[in-house]
Amino acid sequence: MVNMSFSTYNSPSLEDALHIIRDALSRHMLTVLFGNCRVEYEGRASSTLEWGVRLVILKADGSVLIHRPTGYEPVNWQPPGSSFRVEVLDDNLKLTAVRSQPKEILNIFFSQIHHILTSSLADTGEFSLYVSELDMKKAILASPSLIEEGFHPLSAEKEAGEAGFVDVFGEDRNGNLVIIEIKRVQAGKDAVLQLKRYVDALRGKFNRPIRGILVAPEIQKDAQFLLAVNNLEFKQLSPRACYDVLKTFKVKKLSEFLT
Amino acid sequence: MVNMSFSTYNSPSLEDALHIIRDALSRHMLTVLFGNCRVEYEGRASSTLEWGVRLVILKADGSVLIHRPTGYEPVNWQPPGSSFRVEVLDDNLKLTAVRSQPKEILNIFFSQIHHILTSSLADTGEFSLYVSELDMKKAILASPSLIEEGFHPLSAEKEAGEAGFVDVFGEDRNGNLVIIEIKRVQAGKDAVLQLKRYVDALRGKFNRPIRGILVAPEIQKDAQFLLAVNNLEFKQLSPRACYDVLKTFKVKKLSEFLT
Repeated sequence: MVNMSFSTYNSPSLEDALHIIRDALSRHMLTVLFGNCRVEYEGRASSTLEWGVRLVILKADGSVLIHRPTGYEPVNWQPPGSSFRVEVLDDNLKLTAVRSQPKEILNIFFSQIHHILTSSLADTGEFSLYVSELDMKKAILASPSLIEEGFHPLSAEKEAGEAGFVDVFGEDRNGNLVIIEIKRVQAGKDAVLQLKRYVDALRGKFNRPIRGILVAPEIQKDAQFLLAVNNLEFKQLSPRACYDVLKTFKVKKLSEFLT
Repeated sequence: MVNMSFSTYNSPSLEDALHIIRDALSRHMLTVLFGNCRVEYEGRASSTLEWGVRLVILKADGSVLIHRPTGYEPVNWQPPGSSFRVEVLDDNLKLTAVRSQPKEILNIFFSQIHHILTSSLADTGEFSLYVSELDMKKAILASPSLIEEGFHPLSAEKEAGEAGFVDVFGEDRNGNLVIIEIKRVQAGKDAVLQLKRYVDALRGKFNRPIRGILVAPEIQKDAQFLLAVNNLEFKQLSPRACYDVLKTFKVKKLSEFLT
């Protein structure tokens, strides 16, 4: 079984909570608080959240999450790197999470803490994901700036004569046409030659400059050389970045991405 | 004090956990599980997460969040609208969260549940935020697609002769120049006239078409009319959208946004 420890506390006094939280934070434990709180945030913009019972998660890396009864996004949060301060002031337990660069302060005031869970989470499980080339294409169509700012897809699967079908066909912010070839693993010379065939096949058909971009998580050295010789480009794109885009966007069909 | 109820359970058997979770979900309670689990996701792309002790949050609206010891983002999640199924299978408690549009299935297998917290959260506290016009400008510079796809800022505070300083000056994907005037509250006729002065002052100076866009959370009827008469545009932009961008982006200084 997994080696881990955890402790829970029901309805501690604020003074007891102070000691429990301080101890847990000093030992870099995950700390989950459930209680009636008010929140103030000051940093990039500012916000206030009036009293309510919420779930507050403090992580060892300095992340903070404040969750309400609905929604998968926290109402307030701090990214990793915050430092914590806890004190009891005027009948409230005040928890402060501060980041210095950029300056951001999150203050959580608890009038009552119903429950605390602290734990040294034992979690070394590997996270792995599978993203197909079609998934990567969907991600690019959903979020064209994955390629570059101002990239605008015109069609998925443009026919390039005998060379076959281009993965994504679009234009850049300067009006150049763009042909994109996607590989989900390290791209080799075959991928470069395939892209070159598409570009050659379409070059005569348009009265505009055409750029060819090979999109993959990485590229072999000799393929990189072949790319440069042929005046083609490489854009590094990880399956993880595509996964995050696909999980975030609400649309589904390829056709919905194209305007 | 706030009217709310909550229950906690330490180290329930999987059979007990099954009944506790089913009961909580049927009563639309927030359910927090802490235990050793493995996760499979299949939908847009797919992923697996090997065994580890994690915090799993099920919300009444069908959101699911799976949190590891570090990071402010969940490792797996489902947005609101999922339906839940719980069963005990082969010495595991299997929790399934399914969405139909798009089809996504998240399966969480628990070998052991250390702790459960269920609650009808009493949280009606109002969330309010303050975003200044400078904050909105920073958000636009950090994420130009807030204006439109392909918008590219060229400078913050372009001088427009006696008319003063333009909030954001840039170009669109067709090469037109764009002048942006930002208001953090409902825009009126004054804002339209101010934008018109900038556009008029700069029109003679460039050999390119110039678009004027008034950016605000909303616009008065008569201002909308004045805008149309002067061939200017309105782009609705909420302080909340700017706040989300500012909280997400890592950069800080205005100058860092401009390339």
